[in-house]
Amino acid sequence: MDEKAILHYPESKFCYALDRNTVCLRLRISKSDAPDRVEVVYGGKYTYATEQKTAKMERKYTDRLFAYYTATLRITDSRFVYVFRMTRGNRIYYYSEDGLTEEYDFELSYYNCFQYAYINECDLMKPIEWMQTATFYQIFVDRFRNGNPDKEKAYVNLKWGEIPNPKSFAGGDLKGITQKLSYLNGLGINALYLTPVFKSVSNHKYDISDYYEIDEQFGDKAQLRELIERAHAMGMKIVLDAVFNHCSENLSQFQDVLKKGKKSAYYDWFVISNDDPLEYETFAACSYMPKFNTSNPEVCDYLIGIATYWIREFDIDGWRLDVSDEVSHDFWRQFRRAVKRAKPDCVLIGENWHDASGYLGGDQFDSIMNYAFTKACLDFYAFGRFDTKSFADKLNEILMRNSDPVNDMMLNLLDTHDTHRFLTRVGGDKAKLKSALALLYFFPGSPCIYYGTENAMEGGYDPDCRRTFDWEAEREDGDVKSLIKELTALKRSPDFARAEVGIRAENGMLIVERGKYLLTIAEGGGFTAGTK
Amino acid sequence: MDEKAILHYPESKFCYALDRNTVCLRLRISKSDAPDRVEVVYGGKYTYATEQKTAKMERKYTDRLFAYYTATLRITDSRFVYVFRMTRGNRIYYYSEDGLTEEYDFELSYYNCFQYAYINECDLMKPIEWMQTATFYQIFVDRFRNGNPDKEKAYVNLKWGEIPNPKSFAGGDLKGITQKLSYLNGLGINALYLTPVFKSVSNHKYDISDYYEIDEQFGDKAQLRELIERAHAMGMKIVLDAVFNHCSENLSQFQDVLKKGKKSAYYDWFVISNDDPLEYETFAACSYMPKFNTSNPEVCDYLIGIATYWIREFDIDGWRLDVSDEVSHDFWRQFRRAVKRAKPDCVLIGENWHDASGYLGGDQFDSIMNYAFTKACLDFYAFGRFDTKSFADKLNEILMRNSDPVNDMMLNLLDTHDTHRFLTRVGGDKAKLKSALALLYFFPGSPCIYYGTENAMEGGYDPDCRRTFDWEAEREDGDVKSLIKELTALKRSPDFARAEVGIRAENGMLIVERGKYLLTIAEGGGFTAGTK
Repeated sequence: MDEKAILHYPESKFCYALDRNTVCLRLRISKSDAPDRVEVVYGGKYTYATEQKTAKMERKYTDRLFAYYTATLRITDSRFVYVFRMTRGNRIYYYSEDGLTEEYDFELSYYNCFQYAYINECDLMKPIEWMQTATFYQIFVDRFRNGNPDKEKAYVNLKWGEIPNPKSFAGGDLKGITQKLSYLNGLGINALYLTPVFKSVSNHKYDISDYYEIDEQFGDKAQLRELIERAHAMGMKIVLDAVFNHCSENLSQFQDVLKKGKKSAYYDWFVISNDDPLEYETFAACSYMPKFNTSNPEVCDYLIGIATYWIREFDIDGWRLDVSDEVSHDFWRQFRRAVKRAKPDCVLIGENWHDASGYLGGDQFDSIMNYAFTKACLDFYAFGRFDTKSFADKLNEILMRNSDPVNDMMLNLLDTHDTHRFLTRVGGDKAKLKSALALLYFFPGSPCIYYGTENAMEGGYDPDCRRTFDWEAEREDGDVKSLIKELTALKRSPDFARAEVGIRAENGMLIVERGKYLLTIAEGGGFTAGTK
Repeated sequence: MDEKAILHYPESKFCYALDRNTVCLRLRISKSDAPDRVEVVYGGKYTYATEQKTAKMERKYTDRLFAYYTATLRITDSRFVYVFRMTRGNRIYYYSEDGLTEEYDFELSYYNCFQYAYINECDLMKPIEWMQTATFYQIFVDRFRNGNPDKEKAYVNLKWGEIPNPKSFAGGDLKGITQKLSYLNGLGINALYLTPVFKSVSNHKYDISDYYEIDEQFGDKAQLRELIERAHAMGMKIVLDAVFNHCSENLSQFQDVLKKGKKSAYYDWFVISNDDPLEYETFAACSYMPKFNTSNPEVCDYLIGIATYWIREFDIDGWRLDVSDEVSHDFWRQFRRAVKRAKPDCVLIGENWHDASGYLGGDQFDSIMNYAFTKACLDFYAFGRFDTKSFADKLNEILMRNSDPVNDMMLNLLDTHDTHRFLTRVGGDKAKLKSALALLYFFPGSPCIYYGTENAMEGGYDPDCRRTFDWEAEREDGDVKSLIKELTALKRSPDFARAEVGIRAENGMLIVERGKYLLTIAEGGGFTAGTK
């Protein structure tokens, strides 16, 4: 056994509970090790010295370097302790907090066994039921549809269909989305994620000056309410964008600081390093986006108040959390507690581009925007860095970053308003887009379609990825759209949505099994999807 | 390079911040790998594609399998991103979220570099100043000293000096401790940890029936106040025992449930699985100790109210958290927030016998009772399982479980009321006890002396480890006591307390360097301590 390759941490993605009586275990070992048998020897914390049970673990995931053995156990005592036992030939190895040993002293196990000392209900990551069959559709609001031709349009400076620049306003709005709910529903979409809709001078509205108002370019509260009510009536969920890392310099509290300096009651709401001239932390290097100081409890209360207001008053179904990796963990923990109290199945999706397991342990987010999946797809379909073998390895590695309940809520995506459009990255090759879309659905988690993908929309990096939706082209029922319809229908069927997923490479093919369904992808990207 | 042995997680014990401008890094690699150079290539999150700095990492810790390279960096941009670079001969390896590669594309680093995306003040684990020079002394109150000969003594059933049984009451109390503060201060003790003092029918009082009253066997609130005030006047801190996992069946809220069953307003305060007959979760298998349901917010508020009451009204300096591993993380997070708001330098010490890194990330405890250290000492001094080499390896491994600020607050101990006395475990060999005490002080963290150790007290497992303190023997100034006096004096000197510690085995000796100080321990346990 390659002891140095072995990895296990209790109360983590390697050992977590689904409920008070169900524990999931993972043990990582070197892929080149192949023990005859891997078992978990477990019991109750207060009886383990004398009573142990044994369960077999299965080799279920392999990535480039490692194999992961898993087991799901039904237990009666929620004070769960354990060690691992590996057998090869006549050699037996135990793996405990003290590492790999050929013997294990259960009498002294209270010093060095692994433990999930007590499974407390409130610590569990609870799967959100509706997420299991959801297909998300991300809308960059200014560019989707202008639903209100009579509105004040002086601000509109981009003709619908022309290529946008960073300062373009095209006139898309909430009414436009409401008008197209049937269309989206027809695609099988059952969850919308809208980029910010609150008061802001920019087209993207990630610099918010009033979190309690809808930007008038997009509509008003009545129009948001109508959108949500009609969406709910069709079985569609609405997720809004929470920009809590920073605000606009126009936020009244920041204006107060600009006016009064240190005497402002809001001085400690921001991260200020110098008074004259005023120097403060911002989003990236954008001085018009001052960063909130969430180490200040007043700021936490203010932002949590906003989050619960839109849930309570408008019944939204989730928050996508902008630049969530730069906001304090301490804030997100308070935020989650308040949000889940207001609406237990409100989903929290962080914008974390990297491994975010530290945010996904049940105390902060439910999910993140899965850019690691995006990157893997680009490496395979666009950059030529992966063959099917490396692709399979990487996809398994991504799954091993988080627990199964989190994996099942991941927001998987090929592109967003912050990336090139996937179709453009693959040189306009629709076959590759379709293959990637099939994988997007077969992979555990919730697929998220960037607006216009169904229409084979292209676009380079921001602002080009934010072109206006082509409602003329939309009329042609292209093959991408047909595929999305098929896939959303599949995703809504429980025997697909809830099936276990297994990913491997075999004979130059990437093979994804999901219950009775099978996806195979060839080196060039060609795919077949169907039942086994 | 043995890629499978490499381990690093951002925002963990492998990458944490001391303040907004200081980051500490650790990279684990195989001990048998010896790259010529290990570096961290770092920068700001928004400029990293084009601007990187490089810092050398030092091989600072080695355990049985691994070497740990560390670096402490001063940074100006709190949005910290990085990858590692290892050089051997003319080969260069990068280590990122994507594993070990021979090249690294900084242009696409936003997908797979490591990051501590923003260092938020409120997420930091802040060292508690007074802990840095503290020596703790643990008192099992009933057995330390009876300071009030006039009190009602009908409950006392053990003659002072006789061997206790589980039901013995010997008459020790708060006044007895107050009387001996000068004695303890003379030993150099500057922090007391008292086992529970609240109302309870048992001698140990881990089954509490009123958290707002001092048990009358031990005294009253005025006597606690006097003890704390006099201790504080001598520069001594007082840590009490918080039994929040469970209570006594006599707690009025549980009595209400016994009376009214499901109709009780407190029914959800406990973890009840059946009503008739009443079945509920308990501590271990003790039906007289029902477990609190900290998934219930009312229970959290109740327990946090207790914790802050004793801080606010009596100015206690810390809580030792009984059976802390079975209480919810969610509760401890709320608990920490409330306690630290009430008194920022109030220490929180969990009773976690196992690797507790999941509790020590800055959001829950400051410290735990370091039973892993205890076990290592037993394996070396008592069980003959370790030679100095294995001992050095294990001590380094224990240090690598947590960040340096946590290591510096660990409550290191040789024995407690829950173990055999160490001297008895080593067959009464005082030379071994003294050697272990020297190590206890040289190891990072706060040493904790179990009452009577200075007096070479012996005792097997509970109840034998809870014998009465022998105030006759105390008068003889034995060599253990002299050593403790020397060591506590050393611990109080900043050049010792704040010095970096390095542990290794060399020529059959365990060598602990702590700044200019040096401890060497031979295979048999013989030691020398002094300056280099």
